[in-house]
Amino acid sequence: MKAAFLSIGDEIVGGLTVDTNSGFIAGELRDVGVEPVAGFSVRDDEDEIIRAFRQALEQAELVVSTGGLGPTVDDLTTACVAKLAGREMVLHQPSLAAMEERFRVRGIEMPANNRKQALFPRGAEVIPNPNGTAPGFICPVLTDGGTRHVACLPGVPRETRHMVAATLVPWVAARQPGRRFLSRTFSTVGLAESRIDELLAGAIRPDEARVAFRASFPRMYVRLTVDGAPGERLEARMDELEARVRERLGDAVYAVGDEGLEETVGRLLRERGLTLAVAESCTGGRIGDRITDVPGSSAYFLLGTATYSNDAKAAVLGVSPQTLARHGAVSTETAEEMAAGVRRIAGADVGLSTTGIAGPGGGTEEKPVGTVCIALVWEGGAWSRRYDLGAREREWIKATTAQLALDRLRRWLLNPD
Amino acid sequence: MKAAFLSIGDEIVGGLTVDTNSGFIAGELRDVGVEPVAGFSVRDDEDEIIRAFRQALEQAELVVSTGGLGPTVDDLTTACVAKLAGREMVLHQPSLAAMEERFRVRGIEMPANNRKQALFPRGAEVIPNPNGTAPGFICPVLTDGGTRHVACLPGVPRETRHMVAATLVPWVAARQPGRRFLSRTFSTVGLAESRIDELLAGAIRPDEARVAFRASFPRMYVRLTVDGAPGERLEARMDELEARVRERLGDAVYAVGDEGLEETVGRLLRERGLTLAVAESCTGGRIGDRITDVPGSSAYFLLGTATYSNDAKAAVLGVSPQTLARHGAVSTETAEEMAAGVRRIAGADVGLSTTGIAGPGGGTEEKPVGTVCIALVWEGGAWSRRYDLGAREREWIKATTAQLALDRLRRWLLNPD
Repeated sequence: MKAAFLSIGDEIVGGLTVDTNSGFIAGELRDVGVEPVAGFSVRDDEDEIIRAFRQALEQAELVVSTGGLGPTVDDLTTACVAKLAGREMVLHQPSLAAMEERFRVRGIEMPANNRKQALFPRGAEVIPNPNGTAPGFICPVLTDGGTRHVACLPGVPRETRHMVAATLVPWVAARQPGRRFLSRTFSTVGLAESRIDELLAGAIRPDEARVAFRASFPRMYVRLTVDGAPGERLEARMDELEARVRERLGDAVYAVGDEGLEETVGRLLRERGLTLAVAESCTGGRIGDRITDVPGSSAYFLLGTATYSNDAKAAVLGVSPQTLARHGAVSTETAEEMAAGVRRIAGADVGLSTTGIAGPGGGTEEKPVGTVCIALVWEGGAWSRRYDLGAREREWIKATTAQLALDRLRRWLLNPD
Repeated sequence: MKAAFLSIGDEIVGGLTVDTNSGFIAGELRDVGVEPVAGFSVRDDEDEIIRAFRQALEQAELVVSTGGLGPTVDDLTTACVAKLAGREMVLHQPSLAAMEERFRVRGIEMPANNRKQALFPRGAEVIPNPNGTAPGFICPVLTDGGTRHVACLPGVPRETRHMVAATLVPWVAARQPGRRFLSRTFSTVGLAESRIDELLAGAIRPDEARVAFRASFPRMYVRLTVDGAPGERLEARMDELEARVRERLGDAVYAVGDEGLEETVGRLLRERGLTLAVAESCTGGRIGDRITDVPGSSAYFLLGTATYSNDAKAAVLGVSPQTLARHGAVSTETAEEMAAGVRRIAGADVGLSTTGIAGPGGGTEEKPVGTVCIALVWEGGAWSRRYDLGAREREWIKATTAQLALDRLRRWLLNPD
């Protein structure tokens, strides 16, 4: 099945909003065997919307639109599809009831124009929207190429993503009765996409699984998709592929599913009943910020410090002035004393630290921009290392240093020594 | 002039890369009087690319494409445009020379296939690319609607953005010889888009300036564009409009140009020769992270702490156990003691603090999720306030609290009392 995508709204075409829906939906549909072939974006104009739907339907059996389902006069998608399909608009009573209920629990009277959102082309299949007032729908359209389908979803990404997973993906899968699909995502750290590609090249043949990458710096996800006839044991095949992925990528795989290192680290700290304190310098608070993005992190995160000056490193963390004088603020020695200091002050089980030169200023010949030291200190042991990340942008150096530090903590939690 | 946008590449259509180029270019061209009318995305396929260019040229006098200018076999844009325009491809000697030079200074031999990037449709105007090997070009195409133009740019956002500003925008402006354009951006804080719209509605008439909004949570930008005949004093008109914007929006405008509050605050601290220490709780390091995103922030940022536990608030910052017991960790009293404590420890001029309930757990009837306290302490004075942000998502509460705290600091720096 081929699919095309249509993003509807003045704000999209005018560049005020970036369309992230089309790409997201394309990725999800690819996992159930759909081939994305084209994308369109149009303004809130009836003629232009209908023309774009026609152009898209020439190229694809399924056209997925986002946007234009709101209650106001410039929300035209449903009316355009009804016209295109030659179907009248009819009231969908369950959608109206759900909408009225939504307003009632909030103690607000439903504005009259919201009623419009419960109208759909006759015969369309309604897609419920538990997160907003605008349901979506799937409507058949007779074309020169036979009966094709238009699926219309709201423009709000959170609402649409839910509806894609809950309804559109199963709908597509059900229309391919001879095939089933299964995907699994692996979150990795420390390997570039090209390197992962190389490592997996010999391990997974193209006919065994589709391998896709998604980079969201500093995160890197690998997604495998297998398919087969109903009755085939896809889970078992996937488990076998996962074993091969893990053999090739080793502990660069930190989670199944797409999660951040801060979540993995949090889970490991909880499981082991350990507490953490973090002493940051060049990362300036990035690590603490990421760790506290995880709900419930107060159970294991006791203290973070960002000591940018030598004085603060000495006064707050107890780093010795001799160490600072002899080795400098950016040194494994200082990093270790920072980690030990924050651990002691917080009474934590583990102390983690970063110190480095994020640039653009502050570099020297011996310690150029991108020189970074990370240390980890625990009961009876310590680890530290200097990294030379190169004279990259400040933001890249901060993000990479935070990622390296969290990964070091993860590896230690998996294998304390 | 109407413009349409075409994003070329399998990775765009397949959802592996989000097209941010089209929207960016649309926004820039709007500022010189262009009306964006539609967007397309297509795969690396000759027929599909040519079809999309044809569809786009039906709707617009200018079609701007991005992507497909690389050296490999799946980079087809230039060949497609040559075919579409009925022009042969010719070698552009200056582009070849620039490319060879690029490789020479890096000590790498130029691969033979890069030569392809110096071929353009005869008569096309070449757009130099100082940041990459792929130059762009503007090519006239004869259509049923007369001679229209196709502008082709590379897909790498950093390269394309430069080329748009340096070449495409001036090219478009020059084709409207009777008009000149001037834009100015204002960074604002604390007002929703709808509120800004209301406030400016009476102040700036549509015929005086175009007003556009760009939200990049938690940032909100307002951009004014004026135009007039050559010789008109646009700067003076813009200054007069700026005065009206400032009168209406007051100190919600924190900068001319698009900059973050952390940059504004950094500049003010520098100008006043003041140093800062930050005690975070619910923001977990977000404020320190943002402040240290600014190069040179070590000149004024002395210390950040993230004290998530009551013990850490007492032990590290010296918050009194009585205050914690009587008022709780989320209280203006605790916030003030945190700010005073971090200021004292760091020997800083100003101490800033946050404490709150970011959720989803931890709320009570008296202090539900979204209850946040911020305090600022300086020599001889203190300020604190409780905010009720509502039971929003954890990330929203963290980001909003950090923004409120930085804004409070900014307002104090503008008007210390």
